[in-house]
Formats: sequence, C-alpha cells, structure tokens
Amino acid sequence: MSIYIIPIAGIIALIFAFILRSKISKEDMGTEKMKELTKAINEGAMAFLNTEYRNLSIFVIIVAIIISIFLNIQTAVAFVTGAIFSALAGYFGMQIATLSNSRTTNAARSGMNEALQISFSGGAVMGMSVVGLGLLGLGGLYILFDGNVEYIRGFAFGASSIALFARVGGGIYTKAADVGADLVGKVEAGIPEDDPRNPGAIADNVGDNVGDVAGMGADLFESYVGSIVAAMALGVSLADANPAIGVNFVVLPMFIAAAGIVAAIIGTRFVKAKEGANLSAALERGTLVSAGLTLVFAYFLTDYLIGQLGYFWAILAGLIAGVLIGRITEYYTSDHKPPVQHIADQSQTGAATNIISGLAVGMKSTTLPIIVITITIFIAFKLGGLYGIALAAVGMLSTTGITLAVDAYGPIADNAGGIAEMAELDPNVREVTDQLDAAGNTTAAIGKGFAIGSAALTSLALFSAFTEAADLQNIVLTNPKVIIGLFIGAMLPFLFASITMEAVGKAAFEMISEIRRQFKEIPGIMEGENKPEYARCVDISTAAALREMILPGSLAVITPIVIGLWSAEALGGLLAGALATGVLMAIMMSNAGGAWDNAKKYVEAGNFGGKGTETHDATVVGDTVGDPFKDTSGPALNILIKLMTIVSLVFAPLFG
Amino acid sequence: MSIYIIPIAGIIALIFAFILRSKISKEDMGTEKMKELTKAINEGAMAFLNTEYRNLSIFVIIVAIIISIFLNIQTAVAFVTGAIFSALAGYFGMQIATLSNSRTTNAARSGMNEALQISFSGGAVMGMSVVGLGLLGLGGLYILFDGNVEYIRGFAFGASSIALFARVGGGIYTKAADVGADLVGKVEAGIPEDDPRNPGAIADNVGDNVGDVAGMGADLFESYVGSIVAAMALGVSLADANPAIGVNFVVLPMFIAAAGIVAAIIGTRFVKAKEGANLSAALERGTLVSAGLTLVFAYFLTDYLIGQLGYFWAILAGLIAGVLIGRITEYYTSDHKPPVQHIADQSQTGAATNIISGLAVGMKSTTLPIIVITITIFIAFKLGGLYGIALAAVGMLSTTGITLAVDAYGPIADNAGGIAEMAELDPNVREVTDQLDAAGNTTAAIGKGFAIGSAALTSLALFSAFTEAADLQNIVLTNPKVIIGLFIGAMLPFLFASITMEAVGKAAFEMISEIRRQFKEIPGIMEGENKPEYARCVDISTAAALREMILPGSLAVITPIVIGLWSAEALGGLLAGALATGVLMAIMMSNAGGAWDNAKKYVEAGNFGGKGTETHDATVVGDTVGDPFKDTSGPALNILIKLMTIVSLVFAPLFG
Repeated sequence: MSIYIIPIAGIIALIFAFILRSKISKEDMGTEKMKELTKAINEGAMAFLNTEYRNLSIFVIIVAIIISIFLNIQTAVAFVTGAIFSALAGYFGMQIATLSNSRTTNAARSGMNEALQISFSGGAVMGMSVVGLGLLGLGGLYILFDGNVEYIRGFAFGASSIALFARVGGGIYTKAADVGADLVGKVEAGIPEDDPRNPGAIADNVGDNVGDVAGMGADLFESYVGSIVAAMALGVSLADANPAIGVNFVVLPMFIAAAGIVAAIIGTRFVKAKEGANLSAALERGTLVSAGLTLVFAYFLTDYLIGQLGYFWAILAGLIAGVLIGRITEYYTSDHKPPVQHIADQSQTGAATNIISGLAVGMKSTTLPIIVITITIFIAFKLGGLYGIALAAVGMLSTTGITLAVDAYGPIADNAGGIAEMAELDPNVREVTDQLDAAGNTTAAIGKGFAIGSAALTSLALFSAFTEAADLQNIVLTNPKVIIGLFIGAMLPFLFASITMEAVGKAAFEMISEIRRQFKEIPGIMEGENKPEYARCVDISTAAALREMILPGSLAVITPIVIGLWSAEALGGLLAGALATGVLMAIMMSNAGGAWDNAKKYVEAGNFGGKGTETHDATVVGDTVGDPFKDTSGPALNILIKLMTIVSLVFAPLFG
Repeated sequence: MSIYIIPIAGIIALIFAFILRSKISKEDMGTEKMKELTKAINEGAMAFLNTEYRNLSIFVIIVAIIISIFLNIQTAVAFVTGAIFSALAGYFGMQIATLSNSRTTNAARSGMNEALQISFSGGAVMGMSVVGLGLLGLGGLYILFDGNVEYIRGFAFGASSIALFARVGGGIYTKAADVGADLVGKVEAGIPEDDPRNPGAIADNVGDNVGDVAGMGADLFESYVGSIVAAMALGVSLADANPAIGVNFVVLPMFIAAAGIVAAIIGTRFVKAKEGANLSAALERGTLVSAGLTLVFAYFLTDYLIGQLGYFWAILAGLIAGVLIGRITEYYTSDHKPPVQHIADQSQTGAATNIISGLAVGMKSTTLPIIVITITIFIAFKLGGLYGIALAAVGMLSTTGITLAVDAYGPIADNAGGIAEMAELDPNVREVTDQLDAAGNTTAAIGKGFAIGSAALTSLALFSAFTEAADLQNIVLTNPKVIIGLFIGAMLPFLFASITMEAVGKAAFEMISEIRRQFKEIPGIMEGENKPEYARCVDISTAAALREMILPGSLAVITPIVIGLWSAEALGGLLAGALATGVLMAIMMSNAGGAWDNAKKYVEAGNFGGKGTETHDATVVGDTVGDPFKDTSGPALNILIKLMTIVSLVFAPLFG
C-alpha cells in the first residue's frame, strides 16, 4: 500500500474538521451579552496559550540545539515538528471550544438535539484535528526521512514534552481559578457559581478551556503519537528479522491509525438524539461503531500487510482492555455505584472520614485495572511479542478521533452552562446544558480507560524500544544500579505529584487574595453597579501556571538524561520504577478525585440531607482535595512516565 | 569465637530485662483508683493478646503443616519458634507497659527524673526482651540445625507473619478506640480526653498498649530478625566462595547483634536527667553512646572474623543512613520546622487545604530518604557486595535494644498521662508526663529512620537471597512476566493500604455507635453516678481488629506463593514492584500522618488563633486522616514488603 495514504488520511481528518468548524461558525451566538462573554473567554484563553507557547518556544529551541549537537539534525527537526503540531492541537481545540460554547448555549434555547449537535461537533473538530495532525506529522516525516524511525522518535518527544507542560500549566490554571472563584464567590460572598459579579468568573471559564480542552488536546495528541511511534520502533527490529515482511511491520501501526480516522468520521454520524432520548446512549453508539469499524479494518490490514493474525488479536485485546478499564473507572467514580455512595455515607461523620474513604476507594480502584493491564500484556505478548503489546496500545488509541470528541464535548457543554448563567438566561437553558454535560461524563469514562491502559502499554512498549536502542538486553533486578534506578524512578511520581499539588495551592492562594481584594476595593460589585476586573484574575492564573510548570516539566526531561549518563542500567530501573508507581498514582489520584466529585453531587441530589447539611460540607472538602488530584497531578503523571521513556529512547545513543 | 556466645548474649539481655522489671515492680502503684484503672487496662490488653494469639495459632499450625509437607520439618520448627518468640516479644512488652504506666504516673508526683527512670526502664525491658529473644532464637536454632541457614529462614518467616498481624490488628484496635472515644467523648459529649465518664476511655488506653507497644514489639522483632537472617543467607554463598573465611561470613551478623546488646545495656545507663534538664538530650545521649559502642565492636569483629574492613564501612554507612533518615523524618514532621508550619498555615483556608498540603508534604518527604537509601546501597555494595547491603541494615538494627527502649517509652508516658487524667490527679502530674511524652517523640524519629531505612535494605537483601535461592540470576526487566509481576507487586501496597484504612473506618464506626448507645441508655454517666460499661468497648475493638486483620494478612502470605508457582521471574518482578511502592507509600503515609498530628499541636500551642478556631478544626481533620496513615497502614507496609520477600525466600525451593 502506498505510504502516501498516511499523510492523506491526516489531511482528510483536518478537512473534515474544517468543514465541521465552518458549519458551527455559521450558527448564531445569541444575545449581545453572550457574545461579549465569549469574547472575554476567548481572549483570556488565547492570551494564556500565546504566553505559554512563547515561553515554551525557548525550551523547544534549547532542546533542539542540544539534539542537533549530540544526536543529529533530523531528530531535532522531528522534535520541533512534534512540538509545533502539539501546540497546534491545543490551539485548534481552544479555538473550536470558544467558538462552540456560546453557540451551544444559544442552541440549547431551541432544544436538546440542536445543542448536542453543536457541542459534539465542536468535540469532533478537536478529535479530528488531533488525529489529523498526528498522522500528517508521522506520515510526512516518515516520507521525508525515507523511513528512518530513529529520527521520528523526535516527533514523539516534541509531542510529549509540550503535552506535559500544557497539562501541568493548564491544570494549575484551571484549578487555581476554580478554587479561587468558588471559595471567595460561593462560600464567602454567597453568590452562585459563574455569577458575573465574581471577579474570577471569566478566569474560571477560561480555565475550563485551558485545562480541559487545550491540556487534553495536547495530552491525547501525545498518547496517540507515542503509541504509534513505540510500535513503529519495535517494528524495525521485526522488519530486520523478517525480510519477507520487512517494512510492513513499521508502517502497520500508521495504517491502523489511518483506518481509525475513517471509522471515526463514520462514527460521528451516529451521534444523534431525539428530544428526551438517552444522550449517553447516542454518544456511546458513536464510540462503539467507530471501535467496531476500526477492528474490521485492522483485521484486513494485518492480514494484508503481515499475514499473521496473532497481531490482530493483540489489537483486539487492547481494545477490550480499554473498554474494561473504562467500565471499572466508571464503577469506582459513578454516583450510581456503591463506592461513591459509600464515600457519601461516610461523609456523615465529617470531612476526615470523607477523605479516608475517598483515598481508600482511590487506592482500591487500582487493583482491577492493573489486573486487566497485566492480562493484556500477557495475551498481547503471547500473540505478538513486544510488538503485540505496542499494537494493543495502538488499538486502543486508534479510536482517539471519536473518544476525544466525546471527551472534549464535556467542557464545551460545561462552558455553555457557564455562559447561560453569566448571561442570565432562562434556567431551563442551563438544565439542557447540564444534561449534556452529565451525559458526557459517563461516556468519557471509556476515554479515561483508554488513556490509563494505553499509557501503561505505550510506556512499556517505549521502554522495550529503549532497551533495544541502548542495547540493554540485561537490566537484571539483581544489579544494584538497577535497584537504585528503580527506587529513584518510583519516587519521582510522588515528588511530581507533590510539586504539582502545591503549585495549585500556591496559585489558588494568589487568586483568592486578588478576588478578595476586588470585592473589598471596588465599590458596587455586589450590587452589579461596577464590573469586576476580570482581566486581573486571568493574568494571575496565567502567570502562576506558567511559573509553576517549569520545575516539574524540567524534572521530567533532565532526570532520565542525568541518570542515563551515569548508567544505562540504572536508567532502565528508573523507567520501570516510574512506570510502576506512575501508573498506580495516576489511577489512584484520578479515581479518588472523580469519586469525591460525584460523592458531592450525590449528596447535592438530596441524599443524606442534601445541600446545606454538614454532610454536604464534608463532601465539599473531598471535592476540593480531589480537584488537583484528578485535573492536575493525576493526568500529568500519565504523560510524565511516557515523556521520561521517550527522552530515554531519543537520547539512548548517548548512553551506550 | 564460640557460637554459644550468641544465645548467651540473648539470655544476658533477657536477664537484664528481668532485673529491670523486678525493680519497676517494687515501685508504688499509687492510689486505689490508679490500681483499679491499671488493672482494667491490663486485663483489656491481655484479653486482646490472648484472643489474638489463640486465633493466630490456627494460622501458625496450618502454615507449619504446609511447610512440613512441601519443604521440611526443620523449617516448620523454626517457623513455629519465630512465631512464638514474636508473640512473646509482644506479650513481654505489653506486661511491662501495663506494669510501668501507673508507676510512672505515681513517680511523676515526686519529680521528672523519677518518672523518666521508670518509664524509660519500662521501654528498656521491652527493647532488651526483643533483642534477647531474637538472638536466643537465632543462636539456638543455628546450633540446633548445625549451621544450616536454609532452615533458619523459617524463624524470620514466623516473626514476620505474626508481626504483620500484630501491627494490623493492633493498629486497627488502637485507632478505632481512639477515634471512637474522641469523636463521641470530646466532640459530641464535650468531655476531656481520657475522662473516666467516657465508655471508650479504657479501650483507648488499652489500644495504646495493643497498638503502640505490642504491635511495635512484634514489628521491631521482625525487623531485627529479618535483617540478621538476610545477611546470614547472603553470607552462605560468600562462605562457599571463600573457604578460608568460610562460616564467619554467616555468623558475623549475629556477633554484631550480640555486641549491640552489650552496647545497649551500657547505653541505658546514660539516660538520666536532672530536674529541668533537657529530656530529649538524655534519651539521645543513650542512643548515641550505644550506636558508637556498637561501631567500635563491629570494627573489631569484622577485622577479627573476616579481615576485610570494607564490610565495616558498609555497616557504618548503614548507621549514618539511619540517622540521616531520622533527621529528615524529624524535619518533615516536627512542629518546629517549615513543612508542619506550612500545613498549619494552609489550614487557615480550611480542611481541604490542610489535607492537600499534608499529602504534598508526605509525598515530598519521600525524596531525600530515597536518595539516602540509594546512596547507601551504592556505597554498601561497592564495599561489600549484596552482603554489604545486608550488613548496612544489620548495622542500623543492632541498636534496636536502645532505640526500641526510646520508642516504647513514649506510649508508657502517654498511658501514664491517661491514668493521671482518669484518676483525677493534680494537673501538674499530667504536665510531667506530657513532657516525658514530648521528649520521646523527637528521639523516636531516629528509631523511625532506622525502621524505614532498614526495611528497604533488609527487603533488598532478602530479595537478593531469594534470587540466589531460586537460582534466578536473570530477572530481566525486558521479560513481560517480570513486568507483569512488577505491576501486580506495585499495586499490592495500594490495595493493602486501602483495606487497612477502611478496616479502621469500619471498626471506628462500630465503636462510635456503642459509645453513643451507652451515653443514651445508661443513666447518670455524665454526672458520674453510674459507671460506663468499659468492657463492651474493649470487646468491640478486639473483635473488629481480629476480624479485619485476616484479609490483609492472608493476602501478604498467599499472593507471593500463587505468583511464584506460576513463574519465579514474575515473583521476582512482584517483589521489586512491592518494594518500590511499599517503601514510598510507607514513608509518605507515616510522614504525612506525623506532620498532620504536629500541625494540630502547633495550632493548639496558640498559633493561628489556637484551639476553638476554624483553623484548629481544619487541623483536627488532618490529624484524624493521619491516624490510620501513621499508626496502621504506614508501619504495616514496612512489614508487608519484608514478609512477602521472606515468604518467597522460604518457598523458593518450590519455584525452581
């Protein structure tokens, strides 16, 4: 098959995204007030992105120079391309999100399906942009470098490093704004969420875009590219060993991803809901159609390109694992299930028991996903060796186009609700957007399952590629250097989580002080006579996020290089240790955070006395603790482990 | 040197303990009320121990039969001996603690040094009993089995399994009683701590003995024996490789431990304080004299028995590492240092920020200890190979006699304070016991450092011994089975921590219900006209602790065997994974718990508004969350990782 199919598939995805975008932009934005709010949110978000990317460009240039000097210019080119494409993925996502939010609000005034169409199309633009950019970049570089995968690793490195900064920076931004706006606005001043009198209201809505949309876009772009590159890297040695099949091992992952794009485009057509219909079912239908089609394509591609169907079963195993982990995640974080209800129940004896039971649920929720991951590793390896493990991750992520659409649709609906509130629209508009938001949460669990499962499998595949690249066939656990690496690696996720959590705390503290100051110093805010200085709050969140993301981000890039220069074996141990604790901490923190969030919602729905009770106060504590868990530290850990592995892989030639 | 020196040193320690005990028992117990209270505490504690040991005897018999069938009768004998000696260590400790507490209270009526002498002597009885039983058992079995170390592993297995049950059971007991008594008594009924009107008061004081004394005794006995057995096991292959030195490699660890006993006896003589003197300094003096003497002895022993001083430097490295980790622990948990003050500061914005900053401090506090541990591994390995790593752990723990004395003295002083309160003595008696208690906390940090550091090094040494025993020279991280084991192993500490934390919650809930019931149904409790039914609360804690310890305890024993039977390589990965996350989670949970505790005390000392403020309420939440962290799950994790490794080592012949 022609290799040009790959970048063409990428371009098709981008065209599809562009068509959807044009359709959305033709919709009406609603009242003047809504337009004004959208503009403020868009400006805040773009200002953040621009400042962030300007700062990161320094990092990218320095690293590119280092790569050029110590490795080669081609890898540097791939690195810069990866960084730029990652930034574009975030940028496109942010643009479409701020384009769709007020239009969703406006459509919600007409009906449920209208609002679903716009918000979901917005999500789909983002999903298609991410996979389109990914395949265009990978295919383009593959052709440019004449099939040399060693250079292409740089593309994944660029994607991962920007993703880590974006996740951490976005996570700090959104949580600082959220906590600040909530604490001073809701708790101290007693005004509702998203109230236009709150000086932090715009920053809060900007944060949703910066963290949930741009952060998530960069994150998924990184996962997508990482899994494909890992499989390609492992395909190289298979190609050498099996000249009859040869380069087909290297390109198969890209072809499966290209098939995934076609499947996703078809899948999006299935997301429609009649008035009063089950929205979750509509979203899930789209996801399942895409996944099913991807499997069919993967079957024929594997058969045609390799001729050994074992690899196909590995892909199937990966997909099933992703769905299972998604279901498990949902079980531990849904307010319809015992774990969350147990946390709510325990909150009756106060905040302490809320925290203890939430942490216990988070810790316990690691068991089943780990068992699913290990079984998948076992099956995929049996059927396709290390390459099979990498393909299992590709299988999960080939559906990124649609799973990201579902994921990104959530924050758009959420933002639409915020605008409805701030623009003081009829309460039933907010009800519609709330229903949209809630429907997204359930289906998003599958996406989370894919994110967790693929992070573990991709890291493992990248790790295997690293051991091949550094010619380390012997990282034995009886070697003290390996053990030293293992301990340091296992410690890094703890340090990283600690730094990011404290960063949120620090940034939130600054935000709280500013909002308090405005309430005190600007007369007539509460009466609605004077407008608060929204921009000051936006600036504070921006500055804090950018300042606080430097340390953890640099840590992730520098540590593997330093340890690798000392001992490649120790670096092997470090990666294994970071993989082990990183995956566990990520699952624990994400699920505990999700469970606390929904325990609060469960009480707010009227259980155990509902709002205004001490039980509810206790659940608010858990929810606040859970915020940096699930939106800053937890998701960033998934990127951290992949970034450290890809750094090691790229610099492997130096550790020989 | 004659091998008979070893058991004789053990017997000397026991005689010394017996003499100290006789001296204490001659002291006056004080008023009738005090005698009565002591009797109730003693009866409750003994009832718990008897029930616990009766239940555990079933476990011991079953395991002994399994060992006899699948391995050999000698290992079964050693296992049963280890279990019995561990039980005796807990029993002796409990006896002396309940013997010393009211006598300390009474002595505190005369003065500080009088009270210090009794409480510290009580601690010393326990310390000496533990090391005495350890060396008597090891030396005795060594002679009985004619130097066959393979059988002696069973002794460590017995010690570790009982220790895990005792730590978990004791930890659940003490925290359930503590939380129950505090929540209903202090918060709901508004009566002070240790008030005799509180139905949970006796259970609370029994809990201090059951958890802090008996649990700690079994814990330290396990660490002590484990480190020596690990070094002996690794000494065997050195002995085979160096016939000129031969068996001296095997017996050196025991001789160093014997020297440690002599050093500890001398050290205890240095713990004296004049009225108004610095109590902490007195305790630290004793510890440092012992450690210094141990080093001097170790130097000559190594020179005499082996003739290569590299091993001595490994021991020195271990001791220094222990002290350093202790200092780091103190830094992160002392209310005189920034981290704890930062948590207190953050508590001003509520419970959520208290929890976030406490968790962040706990996570961050893993970094330096891990760096110290890895440097120690590097140095000890350079100087003495794997055997050197094991000796570093032996070096730390050879001072157990005195460090445990300091550790155990704390709960005795604490209990003495409780009795002073319940017996309604003059408030300045309580002040004296509070000062004693506080002084112990600082010095106990060194003991904690030794516990953490030695757990990591001992597990590593046992792990190495396991790989030798199972003839696994090739547990490579590129083998998927090893990775599967790594993931499962890394997950186990999370699952274990979750189960134990929830167990505390469940047991505390039952206790709360019972105390509430008594306040409601027994008339005149609050007026002091009717006595509460203390025994009912004691029974509830006992039953809950015994019920809840079964699952986590069995998990630790069964999982390695099941995985090992599937694949020895996977078991190797599992142990490495559990070691990595277990050490980190143990440090994180212990330090976060300690930091929350002291942040509360810092606020209670009048900072940020002191008691009765919302800031104080927030610190109470952290303290309550920290209780199961630092007194149940955290310390049990240290035992968990060693127990899993020793199970693997004992059953290694089956995994061949």
